[in-house]
Amino acid sequence: MMSADIRTKPAARPYLAATAKFASGDDNPREFLERCLKALDTWEPQIGAFVTLNLAGARAAADASAARWRAGKTLSAIDGMPTGIKDVIETVDMPTQMGSPLFENWHSMKDAASVVALRAAGAVILGKTVTTEFAAMFPRGTRNPWNPAHTPGGSSSGSAAATAAGIISAGLGTQVIGSVLRPASFCGVVGYKPTVHALNRTGSHDPQSQSCTGVLAASLEDAWQVAYEIAQRAGGDPGWPGLSGPDRMPAAKKPRQLAFLETSGWAFADAPAKQCMQDALGRIGAAGVKVLTRGTHAMVDAIEPDIAGAFDLSFLINDFENRPFLQTCAARDIEQLSPPTRERFVKTADMTLAEYREGLARREEIRAAYAELASDCDACVALGAVGPAPQGLSSTGNPQMNVAASLLGIPAITLPVFTVNDMPLGLQVMGFANRDADAFAIAAWLRSLF
Amino acid sequence: MMSADIRTKPAARPYLAATAKFASGDDNPREFLERCLKALDTWEPQIGAFVTLNLAGARAAADASAARWRAGKTLSAIDGMPTGIKDVIETVDMPTQMGSPLFENWHSMKDAASVVALRAAGAVILGKTVTTEFAAMFPRGTRNPWNPAHTPGGSSSGSAAATAAGIISAGLGTQVIGSVLRPASFCGVVGYKPTVHALNRTGSHDPQSQSCTGVLAASLEDAWQVAYEIAQRAGGDPGWPGLSGPDRMPAAKKPRQLAFLETSGWAFADAPAKQCMQDALGRIGAAGVKVLTRGTHAMVDAIEPDIAGAFDLSFLINDFENRPFLQTCAARDIEQLSPPTRERFVKTADMTLAEYREGLARREEIRAAYAELASDCDACVALGAVGPAPQGLSSTGNPQMNVAASLLGIPAITLPVFTVNDMPLGLQVMGFANRDADAFAIAAWLRSLF
Repeated sequence: MMSADIRTKPAARPYLAATAKFASGDDNPREFLERCLKALDTWEPQIGAFVTLNLAGARAAADASAARWRAGKTLSAIDGMPTGIKDVIETVDMPTQMGSPLFENWHSMKDAASVVALRAAGAVILGKTVTTEFAAMFPRGTRNPWNPAHTPGGSSSGSAAATAAGIISAGLGTQVIGSVLRPASFCGVVGYKPTVHALNRTGSHDPQSQSCTGVLAASLEDAWQVAYEIAQRAGGDPGWPGLSGPDRMPAAKKPRQLAFLETSGWAFADAPAKQCMQDALGRIGAAGVKVLTRGTHAMVDAIEPDIAGAFDLSFLINDFENRPFLQTCAARDIEQLSPPTRERFVKTADMTLAEYREGLARREEIRAAYAELASDCDACVALGAVGPAPQGLSSTGNPQMNVAASLLGIPAITLPVFTVNDMPLGLQVMGFANRDADAFAIAAWLRSLF
Repeated sequence: MMSADIRTKPAARPYLAATAKFASGDDNPREFLERCLKALDTWEPQIGAFVTLNLAGARAAADASAARWRAGKTLSAIDGMPTGIKDVIETVDMPTQMGSPLFENWHSMKDAASVVALRAAGAVILGKTVTTEFAAMFPRGTRNPWNPAHTPGGSSSGSAAATAAGIISAGLGTQVIGSVLRPASFCGVVGYKPTVHALNRTGSHDPQSQSCTGVLAASLEDAWQVAYEIAQRAGGDPGWPGLSGPDRMPAAKKPRQLAFLETSGWAFADAPAKQCMQDALGRIGAAGVKVLTRGTHAMVDAIEPDIAGAFDLSFLINDFENRPFLQTCAARDIEQLSPPTRERFVKTADMTLAEYREGLARREEIRAAYAELASDCDACVALGAVGPAPQGLSSTGNPQMNVAASLLGIPAITLPVFTVNDMPLGLQVMGFANRDADAFAIAAWLRSLF
């Protein structure tokens, strides 16, 4: 008899690396998908990562992809990749329920721009992944595959958990505070929050100005490729240039210098997490790269107080931008809003346009100050979260380590390199706006240190 | 026996001017609405301005407003104003069908941000007004109340026709090429296309970067007030400062100098329309304001060639931005797309992100060049359209006179001051970005010349 506490460790399933065997026929996208579906059978009952599945659609798409690989006529490097779509992003074949009973079985009747692009690139869309209510704070039951008693983080809970469990190679997420980077850190997968506006959000129900479509992926290569293929086909948000960079992930590049940012998260970080960060800084130094820190570099000293208020400033801006939506939801049935969302609805009733404009102006100042750091370093590093995923499902955890990247509108990547008490923890790479490819090159170099 | 050709002329129904009698009880919003509904009975069978009506909801909202006026507790200056919502903008109580059979009876389950704001300001929402298919080129049968054999223009066809017929005091529209200014000119109402991003488009299905929520209104005062009340409550597009200006329309202001812009439209303008423009320029001159023109002023000479390509450049940008949406629609059922939309779908299949970025860069150059004009003049004037509404319903008419304002992202206002062969024609006032209130002040001054 197998003991209940002997469990398989979750294993993410990188796709790009696997496609090397597709041309020869030794493997193919349908076989790859079937391995994912086996993981689905194993893990989904334990973690609850999906709201809706389209198995028949996924199998048909995988078969079509397999035929293209055989014929040497693939649509993109991610042709056949099993993916999940966060349930705030519209899909024509499945409802978009936004983690809210107010949108139970609601159909958009269309794909979001990012989903159109994924399908055009040949990706296999397996299902809709669990989101917290309206991609905000209230969780919807997904569990962490590393320990189901712990949160997977949020709001992109399902995409993170399903990627970690090897059910999909990548999932779309969205981040306006810490909703991609934190669940990636908690679930031990790569998280990529692009430069704000770099991926087209049309048809994604996160209209806030610092929100961003992002990717949770089994590998750094998979994360880059998913984002690249979306941008090529659907661009960035209308009016913005969209993600720039090469058609494959750039090669690892040793940075001139890096900066270590504590951010507002350091005060909340636990001792083992801090030790992980010190270890990472040691490895970086040993590899011959100088790390600028608080107390040793004036620009770091200058930016830390600026980003210390990232959480409050982000909430101020988001609150004004969310208010019309919460008002129309409350008018339908306020009882269907979660208690924290009802609280925000009440709290923001009297906000003025003038307060909002002040928030935007302050954000611009902070973004400009951060951009100056680029003269002295190629990227910043920080913890991926204040610690490993906490126990319990009532909260998605502390986002203080991730909100700076959202406020700054910069690209940020979580690398799953640490382990604390058998739970994963990420290292965060924070780049500079519209230089996402550079952030990947440095992330690839950092990965090689572990 | 009444002859069929003896028809009442349409008469727009200004709201703000009427509210003077509300406090005394001599009139009230419910009575005002009932007069609108009488106009609905008379005109709607002839013009087909509405897709969906919510008469019970409108009457209830008008009664609630009447109680607020009686109690002296109005929510805003437009409390009780009968309005219509272009059917690409979401409403919780009515479907949003976008002029397409693909979205027949589709429900958003929420109000767009602009509609949330209108309701919060006490506006009475009478119904959804006809849009061309996806606010683009294919008309959906609305007729011009000045002559039902003629187009009302588009794509905000229903909001223009219903406002002209006195069924509503104002209707929301959207403009990405000429969709507010042109139908306003054709129907003899005020059209106001704000600075791009000045009114929140969340929940409006026109995500293009130069698209804009606008207002078709019975008076200049009504147009300003509707926009102002939306901006106060819902702001501009997320991340943008939103419409600025006083809480009532600014007083008329005589400009230092004006510029006359031919735009690409002049080559298409008919002789009576050109005569109207010459008459307007004569009145402006007689009032002591110098008008800078092509051939007399270097900046005007410089900007005319820049905006001459506004139509093609706008289409290039819009095409890339529309492509993911048309792809998901075509994947559902391409036969349900109109022939011109199918044509664009095919034509844009191979567009690249690089071409799109070049288009954006060129647009920025042109916007910067136009902004320099502000040093020498306070606004520009142009015809509201190349002529009065043409006969026939198969086209919404030539937008060449309006597309420059869309490309430039500037505020523009159509003033219904001309008549050609018993059909209205507008004078267009083109302002400078984020100076919408200044454009209104000058429009009010221009109105006083006629």
